[in-house]
Amino acid sequence: MNIDTDAHPSVHNAPDGTVLTPIAKDESVGKATAAARRVVDALLRTDRRSADLERIAGELNRIAEHLEEHAPDTAERLIDMWRGEGANGHDPATGPENAIAPPLILVGREDGHVEGEVSLSFPYQGPPGHVHGGVSALLLDHTLGVANAWAGRTGATAQLSIRYHRPTPLFEPLTVRGRLVEHEGKKINSVGEIRTANGDLCVSVEALFIDKTVPRPR
Amino acid sequence: MNIDTDAHPSVHNAPDGTVLTPIAKDESVGKATAAARRVVDALLRTDRRSADLERIAGELNRIAEHLEEHAPDTAERLIDMWRGEGANGHDPATGPENAIAPPLILVGREDGHVEGEVSLSFPYQGPPGHVHGGVSALLLDHTLGVANAWAGRTGATAQLSIRYHRPTPLFEPLTVRGRLVEHEGKKINSVGEIRTANGDLCVSVEALFIDKTVPRPR
Repeated sequence: MNIDTDAHPSVHNAPDGTVLTPIAKDESVGKATAAARRVVDALLRTDRRSADLERIAGELNRIAEHLEEHAPDTAERLIDMWRGEGANGHDPATGPENAIAPPLILVGREDGHVEGEVSLSFPYQGPPGHVHGGVSALLLDHTLGVANAWAGRTGATAQLSIRYHRPTPLFEPLTVRGRLVEHEGKKINSVGEIRTANGDLCVSVEALFIDKTVPRPR
Repeated sequence: MNIDTDAHPSVHNAPDGTVLTPIAKDESVGKATAAARRVVDALLRTDRRSADLERIAGELNRIAEHLEEHAPDTAERLIDMWRGEGANGHDPATGPENAIAPPLILVGREDGHVEGEVSLSFPYQGPPGHVHGGVSALLLDHTLGVANAWAGRTGATAQLSIRYHRPTPLFEPLTVRGRLVEHEGKKINSVGEIRTANGDLCVSVEALFIDKTVPRPR
């Protein structure tokens, strides 16, 4: 479908460098999520023999209890989190409200592609010192969805064909890029890649998206 | 390569139902990580207007500070986390020591495939109420690696070809399966799928792995 251009910036109506990934709707949610992301990372970094993990388990469970006490039921929360149109902050790749997301921040370029730079740490590890192949797939799948929107289209992933050219390093800046190549009827073809800072190609993807989205809950 | 059968259970030496995914090496790490996973979920569930997110941000940052104070440098930590052979607990799909992992628990079957059941919640959301396509890719990529090991082989992902047949629901049990189909020289072909509890096929994958692993840091 053609996207409502008021809600969705695209290469047709927005300048080069437009940030396409969401910001936290609520500053305190963004701060708490950033802190949770730091805990997730630090739990993998810390020395198991000297950190007081029993105490921390108790504190984290008390925090979770407080948050859960204030949680609406799942159906109500789903409606609330999908309220309105446009980018939301809760996806696992770019979402500032999702502690699983690195988060990847993507900008739109005037030639039609989108790109972002990200460094990944211990939580995203597959082979020793390197990014998990499935994490690269997650970042690329999401980037292509954003690239499609930047080109003025949207759709659900139908096929991903991913090639791993070399191990993708942790702890250094990676560039993630994507762009819509062509669309015909309901079919959208997009490509993307992950490269190291010195330009080495680590992962590439070719994807087919179909213009058929899951409706937002109301 | 052929895997050391002492360290790696396989269909050739271990019974049907063998659990192939790791348990936390340290009980307190497992407890703290499970609590962090609960916080990550609850942050997406909670009502932004009534939970005390400013206080929680402060508490989470203090927890992270404590863990970071006890963290060795990155190179030292990498050596420690990859010490020994066999499954480790820190990957983002099945790792009990990684709060990003759901975690998926996989068992080996005597016919050669591996499978596990998992329910996914808000942190893994893509389309409204459904699993992010990239999260499905992460679970399948990892499952195929475990399936290869169960068949007595190991390798790095070279190609993933993933098809999305229908949206994959959140909040209900999903079955993730994988198996090695054939291997010839350094090439390993594997397939996998994700189905709902009533057997509907959501995602399928065909993959090529190459027997060339990243060495463990020493």
